[in-house]
Order: sequence, then structure tokens, then C-alpha cells
Amino acid sequence: MAQPQKAAQSGKPKTAITPTREENFPEWYQSVIKAADMAENSPVRGCMTFKPYGYALWENIQRSMDSLIKDAGVQNAYFPLLIPVSYLSKEAEHVEGFAKECAIVTHHRLEKGPKGGLIPAPSAELEEPFVIRPTSETIIGEAMARWVQSYRDLPLKLNQWCNIMRWEMRTRMFLRTAEFLWQEGHNAFATADEAQDDALKMLEVYRSVYENDLAIATIPGEKTADERFPGADRTFTLELMMQDGKALQGCTSHNLGQNFSKSLNIKYQGEDGQEHFAHTTSWGFTSRSIGATIMTHADDDGMIMPPRVAPYQVTIIPVVRDEAGKAGVFDYCDTLRARLKTIGVRAHFDASDARAPDKMWASIKKGVPVRVEIGQREVDEGQLTMTRRDLGKDSKKTISVDEFIGTIPPLLDSMQADLLARSRTFTDSRIHDVRDLAAMRDFFVAETAGFARCEASLTAQPEFEKIRKDFSITPRCLPFADSGQKVLVGRSY
Amino acid sequence: MAQPQKAAQSGKPKTAITPTREENFPEWYQSVIKAADMAENSPVRGCMTFKPYGYALWENIQRSMDSLIKDAGVQNAYFPLLIPVSYLSKEAEHVEGFAKECAIVTHHRLEKGPKGGLIPAPSAELEEPFVIRPTSETIIGEAMARWVQSYRDLPLKLNQWCNIMRWEMRTRMFLRTAEFLWQEGHNAFATADEAQDDALKMLEVYRSVYENDLAIATIPGEKTADERFPGADRTFTLELMMQDGKALQGCTSHNLGQNFSKSLNIKYQGEDGQEHFAHTTSWGFTSRSIGATIMTHADDDGMIMPPRVAPYQVTIIPVVRDEAGKAGVFDYCDTLRARLKTIGVRAHFDASDARAPDKMWASIKKGVPVRVEIGQREVDEGQLTMTRRDLGKDSKKTISVDEFIGTIPPLLDSMQADLLARSRTFTDSRIHDVRDLAAMRDFFVAETAGFARCEASLTAQPEFEKIRKDFSITPRCLPFADSGQKVLVGRSY
Repeated sequence: MAQPQKAAQSGKPKTAITPTREENFPEWYQSVIKAADMAENSPVRGCMTFKPYGYALWENIQRSMDSLIKDAGVQNAYFPLLIPVSYLSKEAEHVEGFAKECAIVTHHRLEKGPKGGLIPAPSAELEEPFVIRPTSETIIGEAMARWVQSYRDLPLKLNQWCNIMRWEMRTRMFLRTAEFLWQEGHNAFATADEAQDDALKMLEVYRSVYENDLAIATIPGEKTADERFPGADRTFTLELMMQDGKALQGCTSHNLGQNFSKSLNIKYQGEDGQEHFAHTTSWGFTSRSIGATIMTHADDDGMIMPPRVAPYQVTIIPVVRDEAGKAGVFDYCDTLRARLKTIGVRAHFDASDARAPDKMWASIKKGVPVRVEIGQREVDEGQLTMTRRDLGKDSKKTISVDEFIGTIPPLLDSMQADLLARSRTFTDSRIHDVRDLAAMRDFFVAETAGFARCEASLTAQPEFEKIRKDFSITPRCLPFADSGQKVLVGRSY
Repeated sequence: MAQPQKAAQSGKPKTAITPTREENFPEWYQSVIKAADMAENSPVRGCMTFKPYGYALWENIQRSMDSLIKDAGVQNAYFPLLIPVSYLSKEAEHVEGFAKECAIVTHHRLEKGPKGGLIPAPSAELEEPFVIRPTSETIIGEAMARWVQSYRDLPLKLNQWCNIMRWEMRTRMFLRTAEFLWQEGHNAFATADEAQDDALKMLEVYRSVYENDLAIATIPGEKTADERFPGADRTFTLELMMQDGKALQGCTSHNLGQNFSKSLNIKYQGEDGQEHFAHTTSWGFTSRSIGATIMTHADDDGMIMPPRVAPYQVTIIPVVRDEAGKAGVFDYCDTLRARLKTIGVRAHFDASDARAPDKMWASIKKGVPVRVEIGQREVDEGQLTMTRRDLGKDSKKTISVDEFIGTIPPLLDSMQADLLARSRTFTDSRIHDVRDLAAMRDFFVAETAGFARCEASLTAQPEFEKIRKDFSITPRCLPFADSGQKVLVGRSY
């Protein structure tokens, strides 16, 4: 297991992750994922593999969000993976920005080829090809059109957790891959007001998960007209500020008005006996939230997991000097693990036969919130030595097991709060008010990243287009906090 | 909402589901699914849509099984949906029974076609096509071969919950569809004994879910050589007896020996310093378990949900005579719902504006374990009227709300136990011992279904092949209960 071995050889502090954030942020990001053993690129071009430690984080995010989604009165369902191309053709007529890069299924049988190996059987070509869902608006809309007949059938709120595929050539793990995991919600209402309220309500669900579970400060706001989802009346977003000063769009929630209900024919008979088109919303949150968590919290020693969603909240590491004392230390560790379990703390006892320093570094790189080391001395005195991952060695202390058990739940809460506060402070520090476009240009000349905030009307001026191109920036959102009067612009993932 | 309206017109008892099980079992099955609003066939040929009520059952099954899988030391992960065709070519060389019917991705972009509409862009043909995973042995095996280097990396136990696609033309909802949902486990061990123990241990997880959660009696056993998974040393199964006397294979767990580790190159350096091939298992459980639940428990009035996995365990139906009393009855119902929630009972208050008899029939057809009706009289006297779905109107009684709250958890447990006992009795009643092949032939001449049990050696006789063909029967398993000495044969799904 790799560890910062050079530390002993020079006075300069070395880091577990190379390069550091400052040296090369994108490479640092990949190194953190590898060091934490969260994921890897797969041999299938554009696709990634979620390794157990990364998938466990996704499961914890899912559990929390699924509960909030159900509390909002939404029902989970599951729709087919394949979408007939004709469904998209209909959409393509309506939607200019329609994405055509997707995986297309054209055959349904393999056979032995002339050169050996297997080939798609020419006799098994499909009459109509399918695409693997790049999103399920059309296939869910088709069902909604059948399921909604009367005002009594509304609201109809559906969600599915599933895999999605969009053909991406330039990929980055969690952030942009051909296949990714997400939830997509599709709600239908009788009135425009209900749909608008719903789009904001689901955005609030996302805000809760980002801030309360992932400890990431969010900037809730509305997309400008240019940045809206094609076909949406209004698109809402949570913009997140990564440690390199670039924005990451955390999720989107769309008020689709009657645009989709008209193209998909979702209509209902009202109390007035007349037919009306429904008002719909859609809202999605993806596994890129894991990338956001890494780029918000991780440091040059590796990942830092927010306690609430951490696969393990505590790692227990036995430090055994001699074989004679091993059984006693191991028993003590395992008893501690069991006690933590009874109070609802997820603890991992690292009983592997790796060396203690390797276990310590593994725990650091994986970002386990609290590391506990137990040697013979701790056993003899009923104590343990603990270190908070976010505070590092300054937080190292030896306390009694009883004190630890009594204080670990509030300590985890406090670490969770500290991470969010740190993210909030950082985000705020990277937002700069600019009075006019000249000042905006000056800002982006001086800063490679961060947000410029200005009056929303400035982005309508022709000069803004030049700045947009010169610095590859985009309007990220009209923050709710500024009542839609101001806009944030910046570079983004 | 459809209900047995003819009941009043004739003395003969009518059923909510037509046809009945006796009249036409396959059509009855489809009708139950429709009446319970669990699923529907989708416009995508061969694929089904899990509607919210059906998906909620799958979520409850998943939750229970996922917990048992994790308790067994297995970690969840997620591997790519697409598998390069070359991976399967390798398998195809080894495996005679390799399934070639699968969805093949050949292009990655749509473009406007000459006749309008969208077509796969000829310029975007993939150099190597992909198939949508029909199972993930090869892609997970590829990762395992990289992840396993030393005996210290073993055991490696991985599971994924995902969608799977096999091109099926003759489909039946939940039982056989092109796309389905499942979990697939892939474990690797240093020794043959560990792999064999693991295959049985995971079968036991499945047995627990079937018997304890789904209240379905199982017949655990081993597949005969002919019925083994291609490439497995040993295949274990749970055979289930449906109400029409046909067998349903509930799941399989395979001891793959070193067959897959050799073809996929999963090897490790042992403590002896030598390289060894790992011993692997794989084990899978699919959404067809929902079909099994329907065909085990449902009756001619619709679904019967086993309480432990029922989306709702109790439906509360207000019976309002006049508008004046409505608020009082609704409040009373909602208070009851809240009280049930606090004691962990999943209750649904049907506050829709449908008529009370329609709500009652909806609850029956959906198979909600306990139906509660509340009218003004119940409100005035602090009571409720309850009916158990499995026992029907004979179980109808009016009791105090306090008594109901106190007794509903054991009542649900008791209904769960009754359903399992009924399934066990039924299963046992459809197993007939036959002494020789002549008796077996006589049995299948007389009976259209059910199991014949005989000495395992009889299936090696040439006459057995004739019986197999004449009656479309197969050896289902060598039951553990008979120590592998006997075999069960019968028709199956």
C-alpha cells in the first residue's frame, strides 16, 4: 500500500496524494479516488466501475434521498432501459438541443463470425432500433399519458433509480462517464402553480442532501434562459463551488410547464368536464455528487468523508508489538466495534494482517472521519487513541473508552457541521461582486476561477459574449438569495 | 374500478378476478397483476414496467435480502452495463450452452435519416460492438483477476443490484421478460471447501427470504448434471411449487470450482509462494420472485401480500354516510394511521374520493393483509372493523382501536406464518413418490402437474428420456432432505 515514504527523508512535509491540489487539481482528483479505492476506469470505454467503498457512499446518499423523496409523496417505479428511436424522433422535432450521442441497439443475436469470434447476426437486425435511455422523459411520459385520465389521477409523482447512458468521449470518473447512476423524478399536476411549487420543493430535497448529508454548501438559483434544459419553462439548480474555484452543477429541477405534456399528450379531464394538459416537472440527481464530495472535502492526504454518509465513521486499528499481546488487543478492538454498533455508529475493525502504519494511512486516504488506535497501553488503561481526519494530528488524544462512546455521536455531528461551515466559508470567499463588464473581465484576467456576481442584466450586453468566450465562463445561476436580480458567472465542470 | 358486479345477480359466488385459477391459470395470473396495479407490459417489446405498487414489493424484498447479503460479508459494487463482445467470445469457446440472444449495441450516434426521423449514424459504427449484460460473470471476472493478487485479497465477495437483458420473445410479466432486475453475487476463495460452503450459505440467504419474507415454502436441493449452469461444478436451487402444480426455480447458487477462474485468469499467490487459481461461486435472485409470490398466495379475488414485505400492511377505509360526518371519520382514520406508524406498521389511509365499496375491492385485489373500515358508529364507540385478507369475511370483526393497536403486530406475524404453512402443506401435497418409471408415467398421465419423486438413478434410464419428452417434465432437483438420493421431476416455468 502506497504511503508518503519520503516524509522521513526531508524536512518538507510530504503528502499521501501526489500531485497535490495546487500542483495539478485534475490529477489530484484521480489520485484521491484511487488512493481511497472508490472506483476505477473500466475496460469498457467511457464506463467506470464503482468499487465497494465508492458504492457504499452512493448507497448512503441514496438511502437518505430516497427517504426524502418518499416523504414528498413520490412513488418509486421502474421503466424499461430501452427506448424506441421513434420516441426520440418526436422529441427531436421539438427540441433543438437534443443530444444525439447515445448507445444504439440494432441487433438481438450474436453468431459465430467468418473469422471466428462473435458478430451481430445479420438476420437478427431489429426493425426499429432502440437507444439505451439517456433520460426517460419520453418513455415515462408515454405511461403518464395513459395513467392520467381524470383530475383524480393527479398529482402523479414518479421516481426511478437507474442507470443512464450518454456517449461521452472525454470522461472523468463520477463527473462525466458514458454510464452513470441517478434518480429521475417525473411529476404531473393539474395546475401551473403546483408544478412550480414542486420544482422548488424537489430542489429543496437536493439542497438538504447536499448540505445536511454531504456537507457541501450550495447556491440555489435559477438557470438563465440560455442555460435552461431544452423544453423547460424554468430550470432550477444548485451550484457548488469546488476547491479549484470551478462550479459544479449539483442537480437540476425543471418546471416543464405544459411543453412536455403537449408533446407527450398527458391530459386530464378536469372538474369542469373539459380536457386540460397537465403541468409537469422533472428533477434529477446523479452519482456525480460523489465527485462533488471529493472535490469539496478531500485534501492532499486523500479523501475526507462527511460522517453522515461515510461508509465507515470510525476505523479501529490494532497496534500490536508482539504476538503474545495480539489476542488481547484484538478482543478489545472487537468489543469496541460491537459497542459502537449498538449506538448506531458504523465502525470498521481493521483486523487484516497489514502493518499498523499502512492501516493508518489507508484510513487517512479513505477519509474515515475518526481513526482509533489501540495498543497494549490502551488496553491496560481502558483507553483508546483517537484522531479526527479533518483536523489531523493536532486532534490526536488518548481518552477512556467510556468517554469515547459517550462523545462520539456529538463529535461526528460536530465534524459534519465543521465540514459544511468550511465549505460555506470557502464558497463565499470565491464569490466576487463586479459592478460592470470591464470589472468582470479584470476579475477573470486576475483569477483563473471563482464566481463573479453582477446585475443579471449585464449578461444581455454584447460584450458579455466576448468575455464568455475569452474565459470559457458561463452564467451559472440567478441566486435565489439575490431575488433573481443578480447572476453568478464562472468556469464549470 | 372493476369489481365483481354480477355478485348480486346470481346465487353463485363471483370472484373479483376473471378468469379464475381453475379456469385459466396463466390468464388469471395476468389479471391479478393488472387488478393489483403492480405492473404492465411496456410498449418496448419484451420489457415490462414495474408500477409503484409492484416496485414497492421489490424494494421490500431488496431491503431484506441486501441486509442478509451484507451480513454474509459481501460488499456491493457496480460494474458497467455494456460488455465487449470479445469477452463473450472467450466464454462462448468454453461454454456450449452459451446464450446468444442479447441486445447488441453497434452505434453511438443518431442522425436525421433520409426519410426524416432518426437513424443510427453510419459514421458512428463502433469498432467493437457491445452487448447489454445478460449476466456479468465476464466483466466482474476481469476486475477480480486484477483485484486478486495474493491470498490476503481472498475471500473477495462482490454483489451488484442491477438490470439485466436477455432477448426473450415469449414473455410473461415478472417471470420472463427481456429486461429484468436482479442481484448477482460473485465470490472468490482460496480453497474448494470455502467455495462449496459459500454456495450453500448464499442459498440459505435465499431460503430465508423466500420462507421468512415471502412466505413461500422452498425445496432446497442440487441440480442434476444436465440442469447445471454451464461451467458450474455444482448448481444449487430452491424449487417452488406454484398453485397450478408447476415448479418455479426460485434462484440458483453455483459452485464454479476453478472453471471460471481459469478462463478469466483469477489467480493468487498463496502462503506457499505458488500461484493458484481461485475457487469461485456465483448466485442470483431476480424479480421473478414477485411472480412466485403471486402464484403462491393470490386467489380468485386478487393478490395476497405476505405481511412482512407488503407495501402496505393495513388499509384504512373511511365509510362516510353523509358529508357532515366526514371530517370526524377522516380525522379518526388519520389518527389511526399515525398510531400504526409509530408502532412500525405500514398503513395506508385511502382518503381518495372513490366510493367505499370500490376502496374495499381495491384493497382486496391489491392483497393488503388487513383491511380496516371506519364509519360513524366506529368513531362513536372508539372501535374499528377489520378483516384479514387471507381469511376473508369470516375474519371480519369489530374491536376497540386500543385492542387493534395491541394485537396487530402479532396478527401480522400470525398471517405471515399461516401463509407459509399453507404453502408448505400445498407443496407437500403435490409431491408423489413413484417407485419406478412406469409409475412415473402413470402419475403424469393422471396429473397435469405436481412433482414425482423417485430414486435419482431412475433418470439415467433410457425410458426417462421418453417420459421427459412426452410430458415436458424436467428433473427439478435432488432435494437436500433426501440426501441427494432422490430426484423431483415435474413441469416448470
